[in-house]
Amino acid sequence: MNYKAMGRIMSQILMLEALFMLPSLLLGICDGTPKTCMAFVYSMGIILLVAAVMFLASRGAKKTFFAKEGVVCVGLSWIILSLLGCLPFWFSGEIPAFIDAFFEIVSGFTTTGASVVPEVERLSRAVLYWRSFSHWLGGMGVLVFLLAVAPSGRNGSGFTLHLLRAESPGPNVGKLVPRMRQTAAILYLLYILLTVLNVVFLLLGGMPVFDAVCTAFGTAGTGGFGVKNDSIAGYSPYLQNVCTVFMLLFGINFNCYYLLLMRQFRNVLKNEEIRLYFGVVIGSVLLIVWNLRGFYPTLRETFRHAAFQVSSIMTTTGFATADFEQWPSFSKAILLSLMVIGACAGSTGGGIKCARVILLFKELRRSVRQLLHPQKIQVIRCDGQIIDEKILNRTNIYLSAYVIIIAVSFLLISTDGLSPTTNFSAVLACFNNIGPGLEAVGPTANFCSFSVFSKIILILDMLAGRLEIFPILVLFSRSTWKKS
Amino acid sequence: MNYKAMGRIMSQILMLEALFMLPSLLLGICDGTPKTCMAFVYSMGIILLVAAVMFLASRGAKKTFFAKEGVVCVGLSWIILSLLGCLPFWFSGEIPAFIDAFFEIVSGFTTTGASVVPEVERLSRAVLYWRSFSHWLGGMGVLVFLLAVAPSGRNGSGFTLHLLRAESPGPNVGKLVPRMRQTAAILYLLYILLTVLNVVFLLLGGMPVFDAVCTAFGTAGTGGFGVKNDSIAGYSPYLQNVCTVFMLLFGINFNCYYLLLMRQFRNVLKNEEIRLYFGVVIGSVLLIVWNLRGFYPTLRETFRHAAFQVSSIMTTTGFATADFEQWPSFSKAILLSLMVIGACAGSTGGGIKCARVILLFKELRRSVRQLLHPQKIQVIRCDGQIIDEKILNRTNIYLSAYVIIIAVSFLLISTDGLSPTTNFSAVLACFNNIGPGLEAVGPTANFCSFSVFSKIILILDMLAGRLEIFPILVLFSRSTWKKS
Repeated sequence: MNYKAMGRIMSQILMLEALFMLPSLLLGICDGTPKTCMAFVYSMGIILLVAAVMFLASRGAKKTFFAKEGVVCVGLSWIILSLLGCLPFWFSGEIPAFIDAFFEIVSGFTTTGASVVPEVERLSRAVLYWRSFSHWLGGMGVLVFLLAVAPSGRNGSGFTLHLLRAESPGPNVGKLVPRMRQTAAILYLLYILLTVLNVVFLLLGGMPVFDAVCTAFGTAGTGGFGVKNDSIAGYSPYLQNVCTVFMLLFGINFNCYYLLLMRQFRNVLKNEEIRLYFGVVIGSVLLIVWNLRGFYPTLRETFRHAAFQVSSIMTTTGFATADFEQWPSFSKAILLSLMVIGACAGSTGGGIKCARVILLFKELRRSVRQLLHPQKIQVIRCDGQIIDEKILNRTNIYLSAYVIIIAVSFLLISTDGLSPTTNFSAVLACFNNIGPGLEAVGPTANFCSFSVFSKIILILDMLAGRLEIFPILVLFSRSTWKKS
Repeated sequence: MNYKAMGRIMSQILMLEALFMLPSLLLGICDGTPKTCMAFVYSMGIILLVAAVMFLASRGAKKTFFAKEGVVCVGLSWIILSLLGCLPFWFSGEIPAFIDAFFEIVSGFTTTGASVVPEVERLSRAVLYWRSFSHWLGGMGVLVFLLAVAPSGRNGSGFTLHLLRAESPGPNVGKLVPRMRQTAAILYLLYILLTVLNVVFLLLGGMPVFDAVCTAFGTAGTGGFGVKNDSIAGYSPYLQNVCTVFMLLFGINFNCYYLLLMRQFRNVLKNEEIRLYFGVVIGSVLLIVWNLRGFYPTLRETFRHAAFQVSSIMTTTGFATADFEQWPSFSKAILLSLMVIGACAGSTGGGIKCARVILLFKELRRSVRQLLHPQKIQVIRCDGQIIDEKILNRTNIYLSAYVIIIAVSFLLISTDGLSPTTNFSAVLACFNNIGPGLEAVGPTANFCSFSVFSKIILILDMLAGRLEIFPILVLFSRSTWKKS
């Protein structure tokens, strides 16, 4: 294993992390909260120290970098990033227990949005900003960011490809342009552009600047951390609708935005994943509106709440304007199903991803047809192109891993004695990077009732969900650490 | 499609069904219940009439019989068998609604054991006998029975192979002997032998003959219909332990018994599926005993209840000696996980099957290793033999279908408005052919609170679970009914 090259990447990431803490420090100084300021100063100091040690230790790294190292590097980077990123929460005393601070920042970076903080309005603005910014950074990926900004040419092309593959969600990573670095830069430019647009629309609705920026971070990363105890429920219907629209926009495959810029409108309209995504959203909203008839005073309000919650859960954001825990069973079942499906591949959302759902359904249909006509060779097409059997196989393995991890996690956190619905929805909410679940982890509750052991399990679930399982799984494999 | 050959098989099956109703008729005569007797007489008349019509219509059937026809034939046979097999329940008025009678017999044939009857002790012995016998027949398979007893040579060998494959559970059907018919006969002989042994052990414990026979039918088919309102809870500890042991025995791959008879003890001991099966049982019992400490007066009683419930759920039988709905969360979570794993392939039990679980885990491990060493070609071995990639692929597709069906069924039955845990466990209990779930479908409750629509969904789930999905799925595929 090329530990030195990995150490170099990690030292760069940590330097970026320290840099990104600067705005929080400035906010702390503006608000005159010395304890919080010192928390950020100490954290940045420690992070830079670790980065410096790693940098020095990684001198003379070889250029050869294999897929194996890419995967391991991504897994380790996210864990170290979180272990050090939670320090401000802990040092400031605003989240007193280390495990809670760690849970909170992993929930942030993985864009889960599951919180252990009972009242977010009691947190300082500096901490709230860092908490929301972690969503934004984690959404598109910190290694993708590094690739986008790092000077090119120093490392081989395999290097960037392996890292991008391991951190980007979806069954297959499409290159927008031949060079990976440029792809990463284009993705981040689009991401920044959409985020700025989101902030502007929120400001137009009269949302305070701080709230608007934090809410846009939470929306862009499909994270879900808010700055209010009641999430988005207290804002005006206009602002809620803005959130609904932008949550949906951030759940779309970013390649589509690139295609739109390149004026390939037809390819976007024909895209099967986009069609499924909007089909499911519209279908779910209509079914929930029907199921909720009489629940809210007007149809307009019912529609608004249904659309908001569907967008929030389907894109795995996790904002809430209504306590869907009170909704009837069928609506809750729809939301649980949306949790599993998730957003589009190549977006900032989590879940199994629409692209994989399409492949799984097509494979099932093929196997029925193969049973009927065993002699015929049948290929699977998506958007008119034949899908490689390797990608299909990876999709299948992904589903197995998905089911096994959910079952094992459910079993392990059940030792706490909470209800089956709580436990099951907690695992789904963390593993799919959504945030709120049902019952004791519903939209008006939080994750503080779990034991330290269960929190560790849920932390691993969040990381496995965000990194699409394998970068975390390899860390637990003996053959990863064997000398070859 | 060779409809004539399919019609011939179905007419034979229906004749067998009418024949198997005779003992119930005799019981009715003995007990002097004229209404029940007439219900059986009418039912047998209708069944024989349908069989005669089918037989006449199927004259001159061609001998060619493809895999496609085998699968469709199995799916249709089970549906027709159930539609006509539920008539005695309905005609006798003991289950007044047709949909309930249909649900009950499907639950019987598929060895699910989910009941819509609130008080089974109010049913007549004739009806109870038929209800329990349906488990026994469905357990090993009615087409397998037909193959075992039908005169050989009339149909081609492809014929028998396709039918046996479609009805037998597991990722791969092993032939015990070169001829399929003999294999079927050996399986049924072993099955009868074990059932008789079970009856004898129950009689030795002082169980009445009728109870012993019905309980043995429910155990042998891993069904779970009992003759008492409290299932097995009212019987002595000895009888409960006999049930525990025999449930476990019927959950083992029947090929192992054949190997034992052939004195190949080593192969059985080394069998990975058997090891996983007993490993999971022992592990689960110990964990539940630990979790239940203080719940029952003595450790002995705790152990007895834990062992009984674990065996009952793991083998997908569904008998109960304790209301596990009252057990703590962790124990319930273990039982839910066991529901999914299920018994061994080639047994009468349901679920995903231990053999598939092994393959899924091995494939996951391989994919992690492939990520680390992409250039190495790695095969998967089970019991020392290389597993064909086709079987692995089928196992993956099976899991996809499994997950999709559970999600869709859960969504559909949620329209009834029962709790998520009830709905989820009801789908798991039906699809895995177990019987009791949690909350409103717990071990002391039953399935009568569901609507007709939900009952139809659960009926399809039971059939899909017993026949391993594809024989039911093909019935809904357009290409099945297209003229080729």
